[in-house]
Amino acid sequence: MFKTIEEKEATGKVKEVYEDIKGSRGITEIPNFWKMLANDPNELERSWNSLKQVMRKGALDPVTKELIYVAVSITNGCEYCTRSHSYAAKKKGATDEMIKEMISVVGLANKNNKLVDAYQVEVDEIYK
Amino acid sequence: MFKTIEEKEATGKVKEVYEDIKGSRGITEIPNFWKMLANDPNELERSWNSLKQVMRKGALDPVTKELIYVAVSITNGCEYCTRSHSYAAKKKGATDEMIKEMISVVGLANKNNKLVDAYQVEVDEIYK
Amino acid sequence: MFKTIEEKEATGKVKEVYEDIKGSRGITEIPNFWKMLANDPNELERSWNSLKQVMRKGALDPVTKELIYVAVSITNGCEYCTRSHSYAAKKKGATDEMIKEMISVVGLANKNNKLVDAYQVEVDEIYK
Amino acid sequence: MFKTIEEKEATGKVKEVYEDIKGSRGITEIPNFWKMLANDPNELERSWNSLKQVMRKGALDPVTKELIYVAVSITNGCEYCTRSHSYAAKKKGATDEMIKEMISVVGLANKNNKLVDAYQVEVDEIYK
Amino acid sequence: MFKTIEEKEATGKVKEVYEDIKGSRGITEIPNFWKMLANDPNELERSWNSLKQVMRKGALDPVTKELIYVAVSITNGCEYCTRSHSYAAKKKGATDEMIKEMISVVGLANKNNKLVDAYQVEVDEIYK
Amino acid sequence: MFKTIEEKEATGKVKEVYEDIKGSRGITEIPNFWKMLANDPNELERSWNSLKQVMRKGALDPVTKELIYVAVSITNGCEYCTRSHSYAAKKKGATDEMIKEMISVVGLANKNNKLVDAYQVEVDEIYK
Repeated sequence: MFKTIEEKEATGKVKEVYEDIKGSRGITEIPNFWKMLANDPNELERSWNSLKQVMRKGALDPVTKELIYVAVSITNGCEYCTRSHSYAAKKKGATDEMIKEMISVVGLANKNNKLVDAYQVEVDEIYK
Repeated sequence: MFKTIEEKEATGKVKEVYEDIKGSRGITEIPNFWKMLANDPNELERSWNSLKQVMRKGALDPVTKELIYVAVSITNGCEYCTRSHSYAAKKKGATDEMIKEMISVVGLANKNNKLVDAYQVEVDEIYK
Repeated sequence: MFKTIEEKEATGKVKEVYEDIKGSRGITEIPNFWKMLANDPNELERSWNSLKQVMRKGALDPVTKELIYVAVSITNGCEYCTRSHSYAAKKKGATDEMIKEMISVVGLANKNNKLVDAYQVEVDEIYK
Repeated sequence: MFKTIEEKEATGKVKEVYEDIKGSRGITEIPNFWKMLANDPNELERSWNSLKQVMRKGALDPVTKELIYVAVSITNGCEYCTRSHSYAAKKKGATDEMIKEMISVVGLANKNNKLVDAYQVEVDEIYK
Repeated sequence: MFKTIEEKEATGKVKEVYEDIKGSRGITEIPNFWKMLANDPNELERSWNSLKQVMRKGALDPVTKELIYVAVSITNGCEYCTRSHSYAAKKKGATDEMIKEMISVVGLANKNNKLVDAYQVEVDEIYK
Repeated sequence: MFKTIEEKEATGKVKEVYEDIKGSRGITEIPNFWKMLANDPNELERSWNSLKQVMRKGALDPVTKELIYVAVSITNGCEYCTRSHSYAAKKKGATDEMIKEMISVVGLANKNNKLVDAYQVEVDEIYK
């Protein structure tokens, strides 16, 4: 329905964000996600600025943040998101062992979340 | 529909798992989750053994694993799971700042997951 | 935001559906679900007629259908639906053992669904 | 990101589980799901052992369990899981009519789950 | 597992619904969705009748209804549904600008839904 | 785990956002959602700025945007979000009839989304 906005077509706000993405990430090609969001320049700008602010080093290191991002994406069944942020996690230093352990936690949590709903478990006082 | 199996009612496999939970966790009271699973002793045993194996220190430290667990639970909208594993995360050393940053990643990932579905973004060759 | 439409307030299409619910189910009080849907008489009628048609004995017996209904409701985290259809399942003959085994399948399926998404498993030729 | 572990590459725990899968199922080729899980031999072992324990005949027959498994997989939008367990259900004796009725229950339950959330229906006393 | 029922194979109830779809929509080819549902003629009939009743002009215009339909489909990650109802929305008069704004609302709502779950926000008195 | 940040405790960025919320919305009390987000002033600021930008009149009118927001919230089972944005929709002019029709679309879309997954419907050429 929408088409990617290629770099050579980018102008104004889109061009600026594209430059920032390439500079901040040290990459030479804009991923499809941003090239699709560019159909809505305000959404592109909001999403890129949020990503930069949220994923940078803080109390959590960037690798941990990427692993959390992938865990959510798996839970939502988003293939693009799972693949692109697994890639980002590895680029920032995540090992295969770390990714496999993250996956096991995701599997376990999804199972236990449903056991809680199935047995209608009440919240213990200590957790409130 | 089902009722919690209290410690004083526990026998056999259930009693053994309860003892193991208290010993491994250094707690004196069994949380409601396990007391409900005890209605199905095999499920209780499988779930507890998986949890012990998955959540222990490995390539990822236990705090990171708990944060990933909470991220999945938020995404699934499971209140009990969010509360109990936030509690566990803090007990194992997570700070409020770490939890707040995890939440921001979860919010961002949920938004971007849906933008990907909305714009039907194709997977870049580099991520395959 | 909306309020239940009580039996004494019911007129026309709503009154007819209420009578049919009581007659078909052998109950004397309309559950809250139908009393809320009654705010939109067409939705009430469509939903009740679909339910009657879908949940009746066919190639699958009514207990199996109720268990499948509960399995979906757990997966969606719908408390009302889980409770009301577990009740229905038991009324139609489901035992506690059957319900507990259904829950274990739900837990397992939810875990494996996510492992498939995590490892991006390709569909085997034989399953196509 | 990960690759399937083929049978000829399998050693130790992975090889053992592969043999058990082929023997228990009476198949000659390992499905992709297990060949991907084999990247994490502990997860492979846990998942296979759980599956064997949960899906075997108990208070519910194996066909009913497979249908419940498929119902959850449809609800989660997992194509691999829907296809592979529909296949398993048919192999164990499910007819096309049974599968179509299961699908109708899944459609209905998903709709009604959302009507409950939309109208914020309160749990009737009788269901508590 | 199931195959599409082509127009030339359609008989009885299926043929009638196919004619109604073509007439009501002013199209000459039945979309795959209906050709798959035709495997279960009762489900086909129920689903088509519900769609006709729900999506027609009422207090909301048909374009708004299609946009809401797409918003739900994005949230559920259903590619077919997102594509087919975006197509329908445009055919009924939705502009690209309207679709892009709908997408931004969907992204925002999905993020905020999870922030609410993360912070366990209590419902304000005014909203009850 | 976190507590609401009350207006009298608000300083700096939080105080500024609180003032903007009250001014823009013409309300005298800050809803709990914002008082919880205030635990993370950057998230509060990002979320409020996005909301203001996304929900204002554009190609879609504010009522339609609120209805789309509610449709997503119902689909995600978020009670707070469903209640607060139904309230907002009505305040901006949505009638009960509009809300009920939106709910019917949400119910229908959720059902059909799952029928598509169940029958593994392929995307028609015309929708690509």
